[in-house]
Amino acid sequence: MTTDTFPKAARRTALLGGVEVTIQGMAKGSGMIAPDMATMLSFVATDAALPAALLQAMLSAGVKRTFNCITVDSDTSTSDMVLLFATGAAGNAPPASTAPDAPELAAFRQALDSLLEELALMVIRDGEGATKLMTIDVTGAVSDDSAWRVAMAIGNSPLVKTAIAGEDANWGRVVMAVGKCGEPADRDTLSVSIGGVCIAQNGTVRDGYDETPVVAHMKGQEISIAVDLGLGEGHARAWSCDLTHGYIDINGSYRS
Amino acid sequence: MTTDTFPKAARRTALLGGVEVTIQGMAKGSGMIAPDMATMLSFVATDAALPAALLQAMLSAGVKRTFNCITVDSDTSTSDMVLLFATGAAGNAPPASTAPDAPELAAFRQALDSLLEELALMVIRDGEGATKLMTIDVTGAVSDDSAWRVAMAIGNSPLVKTAIAGEDANWGRVVMAVGKCGEPADRDTLSVSIGGVCIAQNGTVRDGYDETPVVAHMKGQEISIAVDLGLGEGHARAWSCDLTHGYIDINGSYRS
Repeated sequence: MTTDTFPKAARRTALLGGVEVTIQGMAKGSGMIAPDMATMLSFVATDAALPAALLQAMLSAGVKRTFNCITVDSDTSTSDMVLLFATGAAGNAPPASTAPDAPELAAFRQALDSLLEELALMVIRDGEGATKLMTIDVTGAVSDDSAWRVAMAIGNSPLVKTAIAGEDANWGRVVMAVGKCGEPADRDTLSVSIGGVCIAQNGTVRDGYDETPVVAHMKGQEISIAVDLGLGEGHARAWSCDLTHGYIDINGSYRS
Repeated sequence: MTTDTFPKAARRTALLGGVEVTIQGMAKGSGMIAPDMATMLSFVATDAALPAALLQAMLSAGVKRTFNCITVDSDTSTSDMVLLFATGAAGNAPPASTAPDAPELAAFRQALDSLLEELALMVIRDGEGATKLMTIDVTGAVSDDSAWRVAMAIGNSPLVKTAIAGEDANWGRVVMAVGKCGEPADRDTLSVSIGGVCIAQNGTVRDGYDETPVVAHMKGQEISIAVDLGLGEGHARAWSCDLTHGYIDINGSYRS
């Protein structure tokens, strides 16, 4: 049984060794989604001629910032996977360097990352019962890993996800999620913005905060939450969706 | 605003230094419940005459196995607390030992632990939208802490919680939760029982498994899940509730 509601595929091209190469990918999955590459499946294929180890390194780096930054319900499947196949049919010259960050690979890497993000976001948009996409940016963390854990805690919080479903800019629940995740954070340096509007700064509601534009933002389908921890340079972006009656229907009533 | 639907109070008596002492407690809370002693409030009072440090040690030990083993929604409040007051009015003789595990304190300790468990379970039974209490026993873990993390991962899984709401003995979702939590576990030594009936043993469905009694169990309000990891002596018990449309109503529609 699948609960996917639309096919998920994406395509990119990039110049590599003077030749245009193509990357195509597809994914399936909408619940039990909090990939930790390990029932989310994604297959990516390219005609680029590149060594397997280099492809794996670029794929791992790309997945870290895309598929491993999405969550529908915090539940991780036992069979999550992203596979990248390369046929070499494009006939590009082999890269002089096999360092994943080599400049000559920049266009390919960028195309791959962009394709992975598009596929990962398709999975979230089709999250079981989801009606809204939540993009969570965390900055000012002590490290990128710490920022990622904070972003995922916000994305996984049932109270944040139900507030989004209820179209309420409940920044207090965002602060709660920051607080519970165990990462370094300080109420007095914390800022929270929703829909690009700074609501709370240094731990308190900003003087003159006007809820009107934020209320309008919450009625949309693309919700943006930004948290600045004010501690360091670490940053991360994660994506989640709202938690609605649809999720309960799909996962609680599937036998009736 | 509170979403509690009933008052939560409990009482125990115990013999201490030849005198009957009383312990009374109350709690509030039904959502944002995954206490990590820090909106869940609990106050316990006793007339026992016992030193503060000893009371704190016994309370901390009791809370570890009760309030810190419950979860409604995995969201931790910033103000969870359990406070224990002792008036000394019972006039018991001061204990000769101030070791929390001293035999002369056994009756008091047992009464306190039992009261804490009763209060903690009241919180879960009144979990936002909850219709069923889930008791999760994990045995065979490499340590008690590891068992606790596995039990809480099962209790926090939206897919397990919606399966309980849907009255489905979905042992596969239980295995998923074990697998995602990052604790030592081995599919080939894993056993899962629901309602006291062993469903899966050593990683596969038990020969002759008859779903009938388990289906009946799932229709009740007290659901028991037991997982044996088959690795060591570590064990823990945690309590959670099902995830229903009621939770979404309370937390997604509170402004309308």
